[in-house]
Amino acid sequence: MQAQEVVALVRQTCRVLSSERVPLESALGRVLREPVCALEDHPAFDRSAVDGYAIRLDDPGTRFEVVDEIRAGDWKPRSLRPGQSVRIGTGGAIPCEGLQVAMKEDVALEGSAIRLVRREAERNIRFRGADARQGQVLVEAGAVLQPGALALLASAGHTRPLVTRLPRVVHATTGNELVPPDQTPSQGRIRDCNSALVRTFLGLRGIPVEQSRLPEDEPAVRDAMGPVADHADLLLTSGGASVGDHDFTRRLLEELGYAILVSKTRTRPGKPLIVATRGDALAMELPGNPLAHFVCLNLFVRAALDALAGRPAEPLFARGVLGAAIDGDANARETFWPARCRQEGPAASLTPLRWLNSGDITSLATANGLIRVPGGSGRIPAGAEVDFVRAAATA
Amino acid sequence: MQAQEVVALVRQTCRVLSSERVPLESALGRVLREPVCALEDHPAFDRSAVDGYAIRLDDPGTRFEVVDEIRAGDWKPRSLRPGQSVRIGTGGAIPCEGLQVAMKEDVALEGSAIRLVRREAERNIRFRGADARQGQVLVEAGAVLQPGALALLASAGHTRPLVTRLPRVVHATTGNELVPPDQTPSQGRIRDCNSALVRTFLGLRGIPVEQSRLPEDEPAVRDAMGPVADHADLLLTSGGASVGDHDFTRRLLEELGYAILVSKTRTRPGKPLIVATRGDALAMELPGNPLAHFVCLNLFVRAALDALAGRPAEPLFARGVLGAAIDGDANARETFWPARCRQEGPAASLTPLRWLNSGDITSLATANGLIRVPGGSGRIPAGAEVDFVRAAATA
Repeated sequence: MQAQEVVALVRQTCRVLSSERVPLESALGRVLREPVCALEDHPAFDRSAVDGYAIRLDDPGTRFEVVDEIRAGDWKPRSLRPGQSVRIGTGGAIPCEGLQVAMKEDVALEGSAIRLVRREAERNIRFRGADARQGQVLVEAGAVLQPGALALLASAGHTRPLVTRLPRVVHATTGNELVPPDQTPSQGRIRDCNSALVRTFLGLRGIPVEQSRLPEDEPAVRDAMGPVADHADLLLTSGGASVGDHDFTRRLLEELGYAILVSKTRTRPGKPLIVATRGDALAMELPGNPLAHFVCLNLFVRAALDALAGRPAEPLFARGVLGAAIDGDANARETFWPARCRQEGPAASLTPLRWLNSGDITSLATANGLIRVPGGSGRIPAGAEVDFVRAAATA
Repeated sequence: MQAQEVVALVRQTCRVLSSERVPLESALGRVLREPVCALEDHPAFDRSAVDGYAIRLDDPGTRFEVVDEIRAGDWKPRSLRPGQSVRIGTGGAIPCEGLQVAMKEDVALEGSAIRLVRREAERNIRFRGADARQGQVLVEAGAVLQPGALALLASAGHTRPLVTRLPRVVHATTGNELVPPDQTPSQGRIRDCNSALVRTFLGLRGIPVEQSRLPEDEPAVRDAMGPVADHADLLLTSGGASVGDHDFTRRLLEELGYAILVSKTRTRPGKPLIVATRGDALAMELPGNPLAHFVCLNLFVRAALDALAGRPAEPLFARGVLGAAIDGDANARETFWPARCRQEGPAASLTPLRWLNSGDITSLATANGLIRVPGGSGRIPAGAEVDFVRAAATA
């Protein structure tokens, strides 16, 4: 399977999780599950758009007694007679119909009166309901709630929006060669870096994860995984390096009642991926190589998180321009090449990073994108347009 | 001042905060403050790149006794005689010099021996130090730590990276017209949405903020602000709507010992911005209008956060292509117009959103960018290339 097909299958398999109401500060990045409507008109009353003096629109005079003052927050309905004005601040409630507001800059003060130096046609009033009418949709269902949308919800009084709950994610690493990253590996062993990768990747979405590092021992893994799998919406395992591990995980998932949907892909790195489902739960075995992890997280796990959250599906690949040639090596498999993406004029420019072999992870220092090199590609020259995936990152 | 000048001034004024060591899971999005070097060679030992059988490179035979098995994590140095092979898994430690690994797929099993069906030139070994040599820089100082870089740090045993500490941010809202967003405003009042905007904007960077909503009463505000200002690296205030508020904040900041650097800008919305400093601390008064807040947060507060964190300065504006015409209205001021940005082929395409007046915040539902309309611009046609700012957002 090509990456695009795996993603389509994941999207199609995942059901959107249930929803919950959360306070605004917890709703950042969450998906809104119902349209949010205006509870009242926006603005809710006629407001002055400027700092100045309210006068009658039908009053042709130039000199006006200042008979009252209205600041933002005041509520002082009153009528005005010809020759009268009211001092009014930006945001202040217009006291009656038929007025306009002369800007402070267009007025000369004369004791308790003002003289209009310049009269604009502009009324300088933000009329009730001009921005949105009561009942009108302000934010559509399916919106990913970013700070701006949250401000709009706050202004409209929707302080507990209905959003998709976070998925319960369980992650286990197996592999006798692995030691925790704060330990010095003995000869022949390496540090586990996939746990940190998975944890921080999920952290980008504010998703907590229950993690464990398991010995490569079938009964022990089975005992450990059974109970945690029961409450996981998404079960992730980081495979060991060997083929045996792959077969073992496959068996394990089947014993736990998962049906295998994908057991390998044609992507490089990332070939021995397993995708499986059980009811509404999804499991993925990510190939142990950390760069394959990086690819699978940004392609397949991201697709699962989006689908579980109910985010509208977006095109998997963006388009960019190669900043330097890339040697596709005519490999039969679709390759995702680590790259540095930056904006060059209006276009995304992609510089392929040094990547010696599938085990070389030094490019992860700066990689913020993955260039898709189609299977069978030879050299792709600088300036060519290519597909790429932007790596998920913090703001 | 134009936006670009304010940003330059902010960048120049802010000093990078002190640094601290944090665990990897807390380092997401933080700025690395020292180069991180390899403590050992990467890989640290010769490893098999494939699942297969190690044989002598100088052995021309086709049939080999399997005399041992090495799995990933094992450490079994040994020599091989001609006609001998060792079963070795991907990632397994190569037992001696002068070997190559025949892939499992190129081998036929014959009892306790193998027969080579095909002999590759490729040695299929990831040699010690091939990816990085001991002492070599893996991640440069100044890097913003994303999941990939954190995985690299984990693999290299750097589990407590030195990063810039988070700024202490204090935010106060004033304005008699404001009520908390979970209350129904009485006539003439509106809900405070700037507090939610500021809190969630800072939340994108994992920065906590101490917030208060203060009455519009000079002595009360002075009493409340004095003590909190003392421990703030960044003091933000959300102005009320009126000119009086602006003057008041200016006075207040001066009384607290801040020197005013900027007291208005030529940007729209966002004109009555105040920027002030006291020692290493920065204060900003953001104009009360929530869209002006959105603009000032994404331009000026972001520049301050970047500078305080020690992020390398990047160009303020990206370039994009207008998806629809925009009416600059020949306004003398530089305008930041709310827009929806999406990738269209390799280019960023920008659709201006409906924006009736500076108080209209309905565009915040979907705005993910701000188009810069230079002062004095008339109609800018669809297809024109423009500057824009991408709004900060979650992954």
